[in-house]
Amino acid sequence: MIEKNSGWVVTVKAPPPSLNDNTADADRLINEVKSVLKTDYIDMDLPLLKNLPWRLRECEYQARCVCFKDRGRWKLVGVKNVNDSSVCAGIAIDLGTTRVVLRLVNLETGDVINESAFDNPQIEIGPDILERVHFADHAAGLKKINRLIIDGLNEHIAGLCEKSGVNIQDVFLLAVSGNTSMTHLFLGLPPNQIIREPYIPVVNTFNTFSAKDLGIQINDTARIFIFPNVGSYFGGDLISGIIYSGLHVQDEISILVDVGTNAEVVLGNKDWLVACAGAAGPALEGGVSEIGMTAKPGVIDRMIIDPEDGTFDLHTIDELPPKGICGSGMIDMMAQLFLSGMVDIRGRFVASKCGDRLKESDGIRRIVLVPSDASATGRELSISQVDIDSLIRSKAAMYTILETIARYVGVTFDDLSTFYIAGTFGSFINPGSAITIGMIPDLSEDTYQSLGNSSLGGATMILTSRKALDAVEGIRDRITYLELNVNQAFMNRFSAAKFLPHTDPSLFPSVKRMVL
Amino acid sequence: MIEKNSGWVVTVKAPPPSLNDNTADADRLINEVKSVLKTDYIDMDLPLLKNLPWRLRECEYQARCVCFKDRGRWKLVGVKNVNDSSVCAGIAIDLGTTRVVLRLVNLETGDVINESAFDNPQIEIGPDILERVHFADHAAGLKKINRLIIDGLNEHIAGLCEKSGVNIQDVFLLAVSGNTSMTHLFLGLPPNQIIREPYIPVVNTFNTFSAKDLGIQINDTARIFIFPNVGSYFGGDLISGIIYSGLHVQDEISILVDVGTNAEVVLGNKDWLVACAGAAGPALEGGVSEIGMTAKPGVIDRMIIDPEDGTFDLHTIDELPPKGICGSGMIDMMAQLFLSGMVDIRGRFVASKCGDRLKESDGIRRIVLVPSDASATGRELSISQVDIDSLIRSKAAMYTILETIARYVGVTFDDLSTFYIAGTFGSFINPGSAITIGMIPDLSEDTYQSLGNSSLGGATMILTSRKALDAVEGIRDRITYLELNVNQAFMNRFSAAKFLPHTDPSLFPSVKRMVL
Repeated sequence: MIEKNSGWVVTVKAPPPSLNDNTADADRLINEVKSVLKTDYIDMDLPLLKNLPWRLRECEYQARCVCFKDRGRWKLVGVKNVNDSSVCAGIAIDLGTTRVVLRLVNLETGDVINESAFDNPQIEIGPDILERVHFADHAAGLKKINRLIIDGLNEHIAGLCEKSGVNIQDVFLLAVSGNTSMTHLFLGLPPNQIIREPYIPVVNTFNTFSAKDLGIQINDTARIFIFPNVGSYFGGDLISGIIYSGLHVQDEISILVDVGTNAEVVLGNKDWLVACAGAAGPALEGGVSEIGMTAKPGVIDRMIIDPEDGTFDLHTIDELPPKGICGSGMIDMMAQLFLSGMVDIRGRFVASKCGDRLKESDGIRRIVLVPSDASATGRELSISQVDIDSLIRSKAAMYTILETIARYVGVTFDDLSTFYIAGTFGSFINPGSAITIGMIPDLSEDTYQSLGNSSLGGATMILTSRKALDAVEGIRDRITYLELNVNQAFMNRFSAAKFLPHTDPSLFPSVKRMVL
Repeated sequence: MIEKNSGWVVTVKAPPPSLNDNTADADRLINEVKSVLKTDYIDMDLPLLKNLPWRLRECEYQARCVCFKDRGRWKLVGVKNVNDSSVCAGIAIDLGTTRVVLRLVNLETGDVINESAFDNPQIEIGPDILERVHFADHAAGLKKINRLIIDGLNEHIAGLCEKSGVNIQDVFLLAVSGNTSMTHLFLGLPPNQIIREPYIPVVNTFNTFSAKDLGIQINDTARIFIFPNVGSYFGGDLISGIIYSGLHVQDEISILVDVGTNAEVVLGNKDWLVACAGAAGPALEGGVSEIGMTAKPGVIDRMIIDPEDGTFDLHTIDELPPKGICGSGMIDMMAQLFLSGMVDIRGRFVASKCGDRLKESDGIRRIVLVPSDASATGRELSISQVDIDSLIRSKAAMYTILETIARYVGVTFDDLSTFYIAGTFGSFINPGSAITIGMIPDLSEDTYQSLGNSSLGGATMILTSRKALDAVEGIRDRITYLELNVNQAFMNRFSAAKFLPHTDPSLFPSVKRMVL
């Protein structure tokens, strides 16, 4: 999906100065770039002007010019000698609440040079967004939490460049994709109204920023692009995901789902886009039970229960001794428990089927996945009835959100040509299991497409494709945001979805076939 | 010539946020401003965003918005409460080589609040441009000379604001008019190619700059507009002068002359503009003789010689004892010496007419204007034959430049509806005297119009009129710059002009009548 050679780097040859043509250096260079880019204005910042005279004389007026667009207006960002073999680079950034991923890109070829990732250092303030936003209520807190991410980025940008043999001075563009709160904290903008009714961000649509102004240590004249937000609960990372999926240019209708604590959904095609976001519960992030965790080595991500003898076949990431279970593992588990009859359609444990694995303490029943002597932690890994109820509420919320948005625009799930699933969750999830528990519609498995890190993917496209950048504002402005009103109709749909797979089994014919 | 209420300050009332409309603060405000300004994009810098949420809540989404255009693109520069009675101010700056003049303007009413002026602190490096440019050849020199003007501006901006009761935080716009070298030094751009063949400035057409980036201590989000240069020897101060004169919008043909060491000339009307610049000699600035100086108290600025008895009636500025003579005084003197017959048409002293005033030492004759006992300095004030020859070369150069540009476009002096004279020189000069010596064409005196400080006047218009700003680039791009080739034809015209008033007296009928 990445277009090579997007043209952020334009090579030009300007006529050298003479008594007959004593146009100023900057105007001379820009006139050439203008004619290549077919534009009337190209802006240029002061630090670049300061070096321009010797730079142009050194390269004899033949230069590689890094150009970028700021909301439709071109800007000259960097100038390099045509004979200089060093790269013109950019970095795509997925600014996640938990994890930050960097991808170093060659702006001339569109090639990915290298990647790295690190835990968002703001975790020291609080693992979730709400704590961080509260911490930023006061100026000193905002300043500190902003410094944490800026310092973290500077450290890891420097590390990524160093291990890739790229000078940080050769990094001219950053494309940042994050949710609304992360974006605000990155910019040092007060996020407190985001979480307070009526939920107002400081800004949705950004100009590009100077790297220097934001304290990002790359080339002084580098520009930083940030994906615009649709609102407080629909951030730029989703716009990035749409760009990456290509949903916005397709004739046929597709849906894009990003699942986390919030489920964010976009439905549409080249003509229209409808989006909504709703709480799907932390269960799907692996945050529900004592043993729930995000996907990492040693975490159970897949699971099969033998229908004959009821033995559990657990798979862990990197096949290390098990220490917990992630969202996709939970969904697999739920589906397998249901298919094996160990839970009923309401998600209640069926004692006769569970056998020894079923335990009870303090009046709460639980099923043991891994006994204490086989786990990495030395403690039993088990899932309680409470965990299962929570997971069912989450999957019901997910399905209800999908049903609501589809009804809103009057399409049925069968109208969907592709069902994109974004994020780490999307990479690990087994759509069959998600269908089995009635979390996602009963479509053929090839309808489902995992996008992987679509937030990073979209940010990468900004660095490699003019067309992608040009599409951003159009996408943002085309999105109709559907406010999910938790009214009676919604609650009725939600209640019906709180069964495995659903109170109406005809909605899940493939599951019906397996169970019967 | 100043349009009141230009509209850089737009007052808007945005709908307050609600659950039904949770547009971000910045987007909410900008949407309103957009509809007033009828534009698709309004840019906004980070420092303004940081304060926006509390500012908008404080003023209940009713704000005075200071807006400005950066080469056709709108930018939101400042936001003030509608109930805040403090002013939204701007400062027009005439960035002269010798003198810097500041004019504080109310951006809402267009009224001038106050003015101040100071000697350009770069004079400590050297009184003329060339010395300063050489000093800036090395980075440390450039840095120092840039600091001198920035520090000087900061000090005097603060002083001007304080004496006017205006908070420097309420200054949102600066409009700077200066020649190409002064502009480069103000921006800290290396000026060394300006004075070296083929005379290339770093940049002619500027984006606006952030006051903070330039180290100017006014509001952090304030923007600085700088008039574009046409070339190394035709600076933004001339564009400013054109704007101020209105020459560029008139049906009839006019000429604008700014006289200094260089004479800069613009000829044209609403359809076309031709410009040239040439060395007119320092004589016209009062820099020629030992007693020549710029206009200031105690300097001879006017002079009459009684045709009957040959007595000298000298006038000094503020009528203080004489200490020297300025350019306009020199021109008056020359005209009076000629009319009284004390010099002949070649500018040679006529001993029989000069009487006792004529002295000679080291073989050089001189005429005494003020004997030593009547001067402020205790020394005789006199003008030598060498001074007179120099003045005649200057006036001949001036006339030749005017003749050349007029011939180039095929107009005669009689076609001129107005002859604008810019600068301090223009304020003091007696056109009759300048005509008498053949420095300027023999047009009726009401054709001549002194513009005063047109550089400051044009800069003021930028702060008070959208139309003036919109006109700037068009003017710059429309100007055909005529390179003055000192060829045989030019030299012939120059030689003919080295007489008083001219070898062809029919060109100066009014002088002919007086002399005969």
